[in-house]
Formats: sequence, structure tokens, C-alpha cells
Amino acid sequence: MAGQIPQPIRCKAAVCRAAGEPLAVEEIVVDPPKAHEVRIKIVCTSLCHSDVTFWRMQDFPGVFPRIFGHEAFGVVESVGEHVEGFAAGDPVVPTFLGQCTECVDCASERSNVCSTYRFAVRPGMPRDGTARFRDRHGAPIHHFLGVSSFSEYTVVDANQVVRVDPAVPPATASLLSCGATTGVGAAWKLAKVEPGSSVAIFGLGAVGLAVAEGARICGKKFGVTHFINPQELGDKPVSQAIIEMTDGGADYCFECIGLASVMSDAFRSSREGWGKTIILGVEMHGAPLSIPSLEILNGKCVMGSLFGGVKPKQDIPILADKYLNKELELDKFITHEVPLKDINTAFDLLLQGKSLRCTIWMDKEMSRLKEQGKITSYI
Amino acid sequence: MAGQIPQPIRCKAAVCRAAGEPLAVEEIVVDPPKAHEVRIKIVCTSLCHSDVTFWRMQDFPGVFPRIFGHEAFGVVESVGEHVEGFAAGDPVVPTFLGQCTECVDCASERSNVCSTYRFAVRPGMPRDGTARFRDRHGAPIHHFLGVSSFSEYTVVDANQVVRVDPAVPPATASLLSCGATTGVGAAWKLAKVEPGSSVAIFGLGAVGLAVAEGARICGKKFGVTHFINPQELGDKPVSQAIIEMTDGGADYCFECIGLASVMSDAFRSSREGWGKTIILGVEMHGAPLSIPSLEILNGKCVMGSLFGGVKPKQDIPILADKYLNKELELDKFITHEVPLKDINTAFDLLLQGKSLRCTIWMDKEMSRLKEQGKITSYI
Repeated sequence: MAGQIPQPIRCKAAVCRAAGEPLAVEEIVVDPPKAHEVRIKIVCTSLCHSDVTFWRMQDFPGVFPRIFGHEAFGVVESVGEHVEGFAAGDPVVPTFLGQCTECVDCASERSNVCSTYRFAVRPGMPRDGTARFRDRHGAPIHHFLGVSSFSEYTVVDANQVVRVDPAVPPATASLLSCGATTGVGAAWKLAKVEPGSSVAIFGLGAVGLAVAEGARICGKKFGVTHFINPQELGDKPVSQAIIEMTDGGADYCFECIGLASVMSDAFRSSREGWGKTIILGVEMHGAPLSIPSLEILNGKCVMGSLFGGVKPKQDIPILADKYLNKELELDKFITHEVPLKDINTAFDLLLQGKSLRCTIWMDKEMSRLKEQGKITSYI
Repeated sequence: MAGQIPQPIRCKAAVCRAAGEPLAVEEIVVDPPKAHEVRIKIVCTSLCHSDVTFWRMQDFPGVFPRIFGHEAFGVVESVGEHVEGFAAGDPVVPTFLGQCTECVDCASERSNVCSTYRFAVRPGMPRDGTARFRDRHGAPIHHFLGVSSFSEYTVVDANQVVRVDPAVPPATASLLSCGATTGVGAAWKLAKVEPGSSVAIFGLGAVGLAVAEGARICGKKFGVTHFINPQELGDKPVSQAIIEMTDGGADYCFECIGLASVMSDAFRSSREGWGKTIILGVEMHGAPLSIPSLEILNGKCVMGSLFGGVKPKQDIPILADKYLNKELELDKFITHEVPLKDINTAFDLLLQGKSLRCTIWMDKEMSRLKEQGKITSYI
């Protein structure tokens, strides 16, 4: 392949043509990567709630037709000009958050929000705003978070591509690309949970359970010890139940749902003196977070983060190592798997609350042969 | 005096008989200190905006008649049973926030909210809820924040009394009792401002200017460099002006007014990635703090504190030392002084925005003689 000029690729992708409608698996064309871009052959991808949030969104930044998906594992197929550090065949995960490694934010341990290429939900690629996908009529198809992994091939900015250890299985590596890393990172990097502290998690989807796993690797031995079903509390507010259970409030409260009312509950459940509320959920209706202004004076703190405070290129390899060293449990997050043609089943399972993560395989048989060593490369 | 049983004291105090009405300087009786209490002869006191907030308050916790005042310097006149570490003649400042020194919060460096005697705006003394003040008809007069320093004598819980170096002049020591410490502490203890960071202060009253002084002692060499008058900005929001001025937002934004709308402005003015908004103002109308829920995901943080995160008995002596070593500037905060009989002038000056701190002297001539060494004790 070396020296060849990348050509457009014809492949299958799951395209969403209108808000909330089932995806259609159709043939598309994926253009070659431009400068600073990487074309990736997706091996598997998984469905995250943020895909669903924007899939439902009628108005901008909801745009259609669009290829969703931002949690994935793949191999580099080709690279554009000026791309350093990646070559065809490299195992990688794309990430919705970029890291240029050079700006003041990337250089600081305090920030994970690259200021050269600020995160935004754009319809196109981050540098030039245009699309690399075309449908059978030549019309452009919009990108999602610069990743669009519900496609056999996609083009991603090199700032949003992270090399992963090939020893990590594809479906597990895919989790590191978004949900698991967000939750683990929030406990490990952002809140910096200490052994012995109390942690309340609001919303036990994949992100919430990953927060529990992140707290566990920070030294909390017993994992999740109590569950509260708010519907079983009668008139008692959930915050009061948590305050009673923790003798004054939890040291750390994580909101992993994306509802302003739950963010307020989390704040009220946090301990006076030093309680931290960590917002991870993307508020589904854009509602503001409302905090009792007198209560925050009692030494409380609210912080928020994209991607759990994780710097993708720096921290995902650390989490991959923790997984390979059996310090970090990830495989239990994968509850289902489907081939690309059945991607709408993944949506159904998540919407019905039946799945944590459903792996969507582009070619499960090929992945099986690769894992067995019967083929040496995905490309 | 040793061995004598403290008797009720007849003295003058400025009593507020109804919300928002001028104070009346009248003769009252101050009962002896009960167990764990200290009776203090107030040397001077100063007026803080929190006095004004509760002076205006018609409904509970606004109660009348009441003796306001919580920023003061005095000497111990007598102590109740079980009081250790204080004796008649000790120079002290009372503080609205207590420190038992034994609870989990007092033992932790992370909290300054004593959990044995939680801060609350009570009408009486913190332990038994009753009053130590009676008017000429024997009717009780309510306390304010457990301090009530607009009186020649007052009774304060021993947890709310801090010994200060007698080398600190009385009017300066009074500032350490609330306003100056809150502002300096917020920069020094709570935000932990670093040299080179950008600091935006909303509200340049005594607390706001003390934040600037706190930031200066944290290594910011140039003090306050720019002033923004929002009325001169036209249609431009103050947050946009600050974002432009700081190339992306201030590292630390301090709200020192107590208005929910300004708290939101402060949050919007803070830098993505690591910007911290510190709430010091007590919201005047009880309105909640509203934060754009998507914006906090960009790595922003909001924290609040009573007393700037300062532990009174531990940190006020440190600040007194910094003052005596000429590291910390405090005297410029005192812009006016009046005798107790003219205390309503202090209210007028603050309400008209003419004063930062107005010292209210109980007996200025006596203080002058004491400072000149012509008398050896205030009692």
C-alpha cells in the first residue's frame, strides 16, 4: 500500500435520514483522508446514549442525513498529508474529544479541553467543516462528533485518533473510546476519589457503572454497596435517603443521566464541608442546572467534564494497561452484540433499558479469524 | 476579679426593634456567660453587608428586637464554666463561624464548617437557643450570628472566640473577624490562586478588595490591573468583556455581591478547561444559582464557602501574623469611624456606597489611652 494515493472507498454504513427514524444500512462513498486526517476501517462500534440524544434532535445541531456512532475500535486504512505517528494497520480508537498535544490546555494537567480544536457538535470535519461521506447520488452525508463510526470506513482528524495496545480485544477497546473512559476517568482523574470516601452515583447505565469501577480502582474495596430505587422511597426525597445513609451526605456525587432535576438531587445529596458533585450527563433538554445559592456556601462544589477529565492520547493507553493488568474490569459492560445490519436492535435494547453496551460488528467472522491468528491484519 | 462569680452587666447597645429601622442606642442588661461561653467587652466593631441583609429581613430568620454586629474586636471580661484557654483581659475577636476543633470537619483540612455546631442564623445562643440580652423591661433581645457586637458587652460561645496578637490594632483586628478574612481566605485557602493566574472579582466592596489582597499574597504581583463598569459596556455582556480581556476567560472568578445573576455572569466569565467560580456573596433574595448545564461540561467548577474556607481558630492568627509582618495590607479597608451613638451613620455610609469599613468605637478615648500605653487594660 505504501506510496499509493488513497482512493474513495465504497462501503456500507448505517445512515440516519431523519430525526428519530430507524437507521438505513446503505452503500456510501468514503472520500480519502485530507491533510491531518486518518481513514479508519472500523472493526466494531458500540451505541452510547449521546448517539440517541442527537439521533432524536430535530433542530440544529441535529442535522440529517448523518452517520452516528462515536465509540469504536478500528485499524488505520490510510493517512492524509502531515499525519505523523500513524500508519496503515495501526490499531486505534477514535475519540470525540481531540488532543493536539501542543496548546495551553493540552500542556496543562488541569484541562482536557484542547483549545486548538474546541469540542463542538459540528455537521462536518473539524478543520474544514466539509463531509467525507457521500450517498449513492453523490450528496454529502453529515458527520457526528468527528467520528461517525456506524460505517465500515470513516475519516477522523488525527487529533481524535488514539493508538491502543493490540492485546486489548476489539469490543473492549471500543468501550475505551467513550463511555467506560468517561466514567472511570471522572472518578480517577476528575474527582480523584480517595479510599474510604462515600460515592453516590445517579444513573447506573454504562457511564455510572464505570464511575463505580473508577472509584474501585481508586481504592474503594467493596464496589457498589447500596442501591436506591427512588420509586420505593415514597415521599422521601432521594437526597434525604442518601444523607441518612452516609451520615450527612456523600463525599462525591456523580450525575450520569443528563437531567437538570437529577443534577440538583445530586448536589443536595453531597456532604456539607467538602462534598463534590460531578456532572457527566449531557442535559437532554438543555435545561440549566439550578443550585440553592445558600447551600453552596457550606463548602460544596459542582464540577463538570467532558470525557471524565481524560486526555485521550495520554490517558486511554493508561486505562488499556490497567485493563491488561487486570486492575480494571471492562468486559462486563458488554451485554449484547449484533452485526451492522441489525444496528436498530442496538437502539431498541438501549431504549428499553435492556443493554449496557451492545457491540456492533462490521464483520464478526473476520474479527474471529484475526483473534485466532488465522489472519494477520484487518486490512 | 479571679474567683468572683460574673454578674449581669448594665451597658449600652444599639438595638434594632424592627426590620429596616434605625438602631436605637439604649441601656440593656447582659447576663453572665453560661457554661462554654465567654463574655466580651467590645472595644470596636464594624458594619458588614450581612448585617444590612438581615437588618432588612422582615421574615424569619429576621427577628426583632435584635442586636446586630458580627465583626469586632474586644477583650474577655469573664468566662463561664468549662471554658479553657481564655481568661479575663485576653484580646479576642468573635467569629460568626464556630470551630470546636474536635469534630470530623474541624479535624479535616478540607472543611471549615464545624459539624458539632453547624452554622445557622439563630435568634439565640447556639447551645441553648436562649438570649443573654434583656431590655430595660426585662424582655429578651435576640442575638445575631451568636456574636451581636453592636453592644458594649456581649456573650459568645467559646467555639466562636479567637485569641489575637495584642500587637494588632483594634480596628484592624475587627476586620479579621469577618470581611477581610472572608476575601483573603477565599483566594488563599479556598481557590488557592497561583502566581500568574487571572482573577476576576465581581463586586469591589470590602470582601472583593480582600480577595484582591488575598490573590496578591498568593503571588500575584500587580494587584488589581483592570476595572470594568458594566454600565459602560453597552450591549456587551460583562462575561464577554472578561473573556476578551483574559483571552478565554478568567482562571478564578469570585462573586462578592450576593446576586444570582452576577453568580451566573461570574460562571460565564470563567475559563473553559479549569475555570473556577467561587461564590462568597449571600444571595440577597434567596434566588437559586443557575448554570448552563452544557457549559459546565467544559471543565468548569463552581464552589462556595462561608468565611472564605478559613478555620477561625487556626487561620485568623496566621493572617494576623501576615499583617504584623507587613505581608498583608488591611488598614486601607477602614475608611470611616464613628462612636456607637452614631452607628446609623455607618449604615448610611455603607448603603450609599461611600465606605468600605466604618469602625464603630465603644470608647475611642479609652482605646487611644490603651494604644499609648497610658492604661494597661481595657477592663
